[in-house]
Amino acid sequence: MRVIVPFGTSDPKSRLSSVLDADERREFAEAMLGDVLDALDGHDPEVLADASVDCDAPVTVDERPLTDAIDAVIAAGTPVAVVMADLALVTPDAVERLFAPDADVVFAPGLGGGTNAMVVRHPGFRTDYHGASIRDHRNAARSLDASVAEVDSFRLAADVDEPSDLAEVILHSDGRAADWLADTGVELRLCDGRTTVERSDSDS
Amino acid sequence: MRVIVPFGTSDPKSRLSSVLDADERREFAEAMLGDVLDALDGHDPEVLADASVDCDAPVTVDERPLTDAIDAVIAAGTPVAVVMADLALVTPDAVERLFAPDADVVFAPGLGGGTNAMVVRHPGFRTDYHGASIRDHRNAARSLDASVAEVDSFRLAADVDEPSDLAEVILHSDGRAADWLADTGVELRLCDGRTTVERSDSDS
Repeated sequence: MRVIVPFGTSDPKSRLSSVLDADERREFAEAMLGDVLDALDGHDPEVLADASVDCDAPVTVDERPLTDAIDAVIAAGTPVAVVMADLALVTPDAVERLFAPDADVVFAPGLGGGTNAMVVRHPGFRTDYHGASIRDHRNAARSLDASVAEVDSFRLAADVDEPSDLAEVILHSDGRAADWLADTGVELRLCDGRTTVERSDSDS
Repeated sequence: MRVIVPFGTSDPKSRLSSVLDADERREFAEAMLGDVLDALDGHDPEVLADASVDCDAPVTVDERPLTDAIDAVIAAGTPVAVVMADLALVTPDAVERLFAPDADVVFAPGLGGGTNAMVVRHPGFRTDYHGASIRDHRNAARSLDASVAEVDSFRLAADVDEPSDLAEVILHSDGRAADWLADTGVELRLCDGRTTVERSDSDS
């Protein structure tokens, strides 16, 4: 099975702009990519990117939209896992749970309707990461009569897009992204509702 | 093992007030409680509430703060599971994973630092649900030299407090709370980021 981690290099993590500037967001995105590659160690992960990126894995640069590049791999008939690059909480155990089900398609839902990781063993399946993609991916599998499994994992569900997600990294990871946040002065801010973050070095 | 579901009856789910009025929030909270009790079927769940509540389980009314009432059960030396009443996505499988580890304390973290479910087999443990409670609960277990396990479950992590959480219910459950949302006209709203909700019957 091929294991692909898509990585977009153009203005990554723009929804974190209230906390991190553009250079910081790029560094942080690369730290999260490092965490994902660490969790996939032993499974020969490949990074699929729209431009070159510095990381501990082979990088294929494909200038098509990333979904087209992923679909081309699926259509070739090789079983493939697609794991998002911003899963800073992911662990080898969570990866094993993703890879365990013997189904044509395995999904790990993300917060807010995303599809944070999947395994595809059916060459007719096509990805569509827009909107509530988990719903569309379930429908796509159903229309193919493909067998489906879903993995119930918080570590796979918690992608990092918004400032409050940074609290999850601080609370539940000791990896590269968590270290980077600590070095950058991003800290927990407790409040009445869910814990979020603040910077110790500014008012942002 | 006793299995306790705490339920606060005073203005439940106030952070949903932009989408649901007070009567609706009470109905919705009771629907979620029903989903949690369904998932715990076979484990003899008990509801611990600050006033009477209509549900399919024995209800103990205790006017103390709910944490004091929970701690009194723990201190009595009986192994106890505490499962929050707003876990509308929870399934029997997720419950089995919570109950499986043979540790003094088992935690299921919630979004934003909460502790959505726990199993306590150490009479010295005390709960504290304020702030980033998962961090405080880990520290409390460590200070007792208690063995700790954590359950990696999105269905246990996704408590329902904020309007965007309603999208998770619609996307991932077909239980009572999901039915109630459909009947009330709460529907998915797709956007660039994470999917949230809107009401089909108003501008709210």
